[in-house]
This record gives sequence, C-alpha cells and structure tokens, in this order.
Amino acid sequence: MKITHTIEELRQTLKPYRQQTVGLVPTMGYLHEGHLSLVKRARQECDIVVMSIFVNPLQFGPQEDLDRYPRDLPRDAALAEKAGVDFLFHPTVEEMYPTPTHTQIIVSEVTEVLCGASRPGHFAGVTTVVGKLFHIVMPDRAYFGLKDAQQVAVIEQMVQDLNFPITVVACDIVRESDGLALSSRNVYLSPEERKQALILSQALFAAKEGLGQGRWKTAQEVNHFVRKTIETQPLAVIDYVETLTYPTLQPIDQLTDQPMIVAVAVYFGRTRLIDNILFVGRE
Amino acid sequence: MKITHTIEELRQTLKPYRQQTVGLVPTMGYLHEGHLSLVKRARQECDIVVMSIFVNPLQFGPQEDLDRYPRDLPRDAALAEKAGVDFLFHPTVEEMYPTPTHTQIIVSEVTEVLCGASRPGHFAGVTTVVGKLFHIVMPDRAYFGLKDAQQVAVIEQMVQDLNFPITVVACDIVRESDGLALSSRNVYLSPEERKQALILSQALFAAKEGLGQGRWKTAQEVNHFVRKTIETQPLAVIDYVETLTYPTLQPIDQLTDQPMIVAVAVYFGRTRLIDNILFVGRE
Repeated sequence: MKITHTIEELRQTLKPYRQQTVGLVPTMGYLHEGHLSLVKRARQECDIVVMSIFVNPLQFGPQEDLDRYPRDLPRDAALAEKAGVDFLFHPTVEEMYPTPTHTQIIVSEVTEVLCGASRPGHFAGVTTVVGKLFHIVMPDRAYFGLKDAQQVAVIEQMVQDLNFPITVVACDIVRESDGLALSSRNVYLSPEERKQALILSQALFAAKEGLGQGRWKTAQEVNHFVRKTIETQPLAVIDYVETLTYPTLQPIDQLTDQPMIVAVAVYFGRTRLIDNILFVGRE
Repeated sequence: MKITHTIEELRQTLKPYRQQTVGLVPTMGYLHEGHLSLVKRARQECDIVVMSIFVNPLQFGPQEDLDRYPRDLPRDAALAEKAGVDFLFHPTVEEMYPTPTHTQIIVSEVTEVLCGASRPGHFAGVTTVVGKLFHIVMPDRAYFGLKDAQQVAVIEQMVQDLNFPITVVACDIVRESDGLALSSRNVYLSPEERKQALILSQALFAAKEGLGQGRWKTAQEVNHFVRKTIETQPLAVIDYVETLTYPTLQPIDQLTDQPMIVAVAVYFGRTRLIDNILFVGRE
C-alpha cells in the first residue's frame, strides 16, 4: 500500500490505472470495522481501492469536536493495508484548503432535517469535501456507510444533480456484538455511558419490530415510543428522534408502505451518537 | 461532426477518446466569431473538441430574457462543424434537469460584484451548469471568452477550490471592426441602439489609453471618466461602471501596478450589454 500526502502525487500515482475500475472509501480515519467493511466491498467490486483519511474542518461547527477528534495514522495505515487498500491519501488541511475556499457545494431540502438541522453548515462541508475528493481521485465507485444515512442521501442527491460519473454504494451499519453502532466517537464514552448507549440500538430494533407488526398508525407514535425508550437511560440527552421517508427525508404523518428511516441523535456527556434503522415494509 | 442530445449518448461517444486531450467549449448557442475563436483555440490545443449548446434556465433571473434568447440550431451546427467541432452536445432542459435540482455550486466574493450584484443567482446558475457539463464531458481543457471576464474569474475560482482536473483557458474578446464586442444579444439592438452601443468600447479603449498614460490617481476617477463618456449617448442607461482588481475583483482606491479590469454593463432599450478591458500595467 502506498501512502500519498499531496493531490499532485496521488493524481500521478493513479494515472496508470485510469482504464481500471477505481473505488474510493472516504473516511476521517480512526478506522473501525465499519470502515473496513467498506474496503471489503470496494475490494470485491473494484480493481483499485483508494482510501482517503482527512478530518475535514469544513464539516465541524465552531463548538464541535474537531480538535479532539481521534487520530492515529500508523494504526489506520496498518488496518487499511491489511484490509486491502492500494492507495491511502492522507492530505494536510493546507493541502486541501491552501486558501480559504470560496466555493461550496450546497444541497438543499434533504440537508435541512436531522443532523442538518442540529449541525448548521455540516452537510455543506461534507458535500464540498466529497466533491473535492471525487475530483482528485476520480473514482468509478464511492463507498459510504449507512450509519450516516442522511449523508448517503445527501451525497446521492449531489451526484445525481451534478452528474458526477460515479456510483455511490451504501453499505450496511456494522455493530458491536451487543448492538452499538461502530463509530470513531465511541472512544469518547466512559464505561457507564458506553453501557447506557446500548439503548439506541435497542430502541431502534424494537421500533423496527413494532413497525413490522403494524403496531403504530403514525410516525409520531413511533417517535414517541423510541423517545420514551431512550429516556429510560438517565445519561441520554436526546438531540432528535425522527421518522422520515428514505432517501427523500420528507416528514411522514400516517405510516404507509414507503421506505422509512427512524433516526436518532443522542448525547452521552459531550459525546453525540447517531444511529438509525431503515424500514422497507413488513417482512 | 456528431450531434448528441443525451448525457448517456455523449458519454458513450466520448469513451474511446478518454486517453486523448478533450477540449470543451460551453456555449448558449447563437454562435458568433467569439465562440468560433474558442473552437479555433481548442482545435489547436486538443485532440477532441466538444461544444455544448444549452440555454441554461438556472442562470436567468425571472425578469430576464430566457424566453426570447436567440436560438438557431441548424445554423449553429453548420458553423460549429466548419470551425472544427467533433461533438456537439445539445441537451433539452429536461435532460439537464430531469427533476428540480437540489444542488448548487456557490462561489462567494468574486460573484458578489458587477453582474453578480445586478443579477442575483446568475453565477450560481453558471457554476452549477458548468460543473454539470464538466462532469458530463470530463474535458482536460475548457474554453471561455473574456467578454464575460467575471464568469472566467468565477469559474477559475471554482475549478481551483473544488480541484476540478481541468485547465480553464481564457480567450480574448472578439469585436466587430467598429469595436462592438460580439454578443448573441447584439441581435436585439435596433439600428440606432447598435450605433450608440459603440460608446462602450470607445469609452473602455479611451480608459485603457488614459491608464497607460497615468492620467488618473484613483479608480473613482477612471469610473467617472467612463461613465461620463457613456452618458453622451442618450439611449445608454448604465447598470454599472467599475474598476476592480483582476481576477480577484476587489475594490481599488488608489491605482497601483496590479492587474485591473474596467467593466461596464449598459442597457440600450431592453438589451443589456457588457464589455470590459483588462489593464496589466503601462506598456
């Protein structure tokens, strides 16, 4: 596996492979099995697998965890190589933003709910850096995890609207054996917070079961159930609990057969965790 | 020359040429010698020359001339073929925007003066469609005329900020023998308007001469001179007269040696004409 730090070097490195299928796995590093499942999928579908590791300042708000976001390049490089990454792109902030960017890629509507409502500017930062990475790597396929289901929806909207010649591949959430969705931010959790955070997946799985059984008539009832379940844990401070159409992320009143997402964001101490389930109809 | 109307067909058509140098000349059609000079330059520098003709609704304001913008595909196709275009891309509005776009590419600062101030949303429409065309055609080089000097500056900013793997080539203004800058909108002018519109190039050439002679100390004096000159024509209604740095388009107080643009937008009846001169220092 070759590690490159500059855009120019990466472009030169990739030049001989332009006739082959290139897969990109964009990450912020501090890799876990969720990231590695993306690499595994890319490895199956592409000739060349590129992973980027870049903690993108543009997608963090002023009060957020940019500075303390966990970083460990040697560990990440070893994991990436073992998983089958061919080229690891690890630019500095100065390399990605040599001057303050005057250009943003802005997606509307699908960005205005859930994390987009809680984190103003977050998705503009995501779409702008992903657009940059797409232009730098020029992949045929790009891999994203469904833990950030809204991010997947936003990037699919961007790719469609701007005609990027790229297939977005959405990969299932990877969870710990006890159900906690993998996240680089899980390292922030104290043992007690880690224990109580299990309520997220428990509440969502129970909601999925209830939806499958036709237990509720409206999205509001689903949200109420999930909210009440999460609130049984004293350390949980809910940011949002929402049931929306997926991937269009429109509000739902009466439940119908259309695909839905139940999505939550919950603070445990200073740590904000997100999780979701997709419900595509009764099984 | 092959004419294609769909994105998919154009992509398939261009596939065999991906190893060669592809040049793109994006236009709104109703071609004149200005457009053809871009083709000529592209023909010299590229293996394959693609021209797009698309009157982009996104860059027209609600009160602007979208509906009456002149169109003549048979004439354009003949001119394009004669000038050496290999592939002409002429999509419908539905092909480019099958659903209302939720995604925009927004450039700040450099878009907020001159035509950006007079035409809110105009440059977001331009950058969004140019980004789409770049993703559809994937050119190595893209050719733009300096009559729309601000557009060139905006697109260069976008290409730099978003790392498009594309070289922007800015080409000189082409003028009628009497000095009028070529524009598809010149067909709107009555004979009397056409005659009075000559004052634009006359005022700008005189300003360039005065700058070369060091006649003025401040940008305001230059603007005042150009404005007074244009106002000698009774049909001329000035939208703006500005002297700014180029390509950064920052305001100037005292004149210095840095490259400048003197840019004007002037109405003759319902027709809005723009013109400019670049001044890169005393000759």
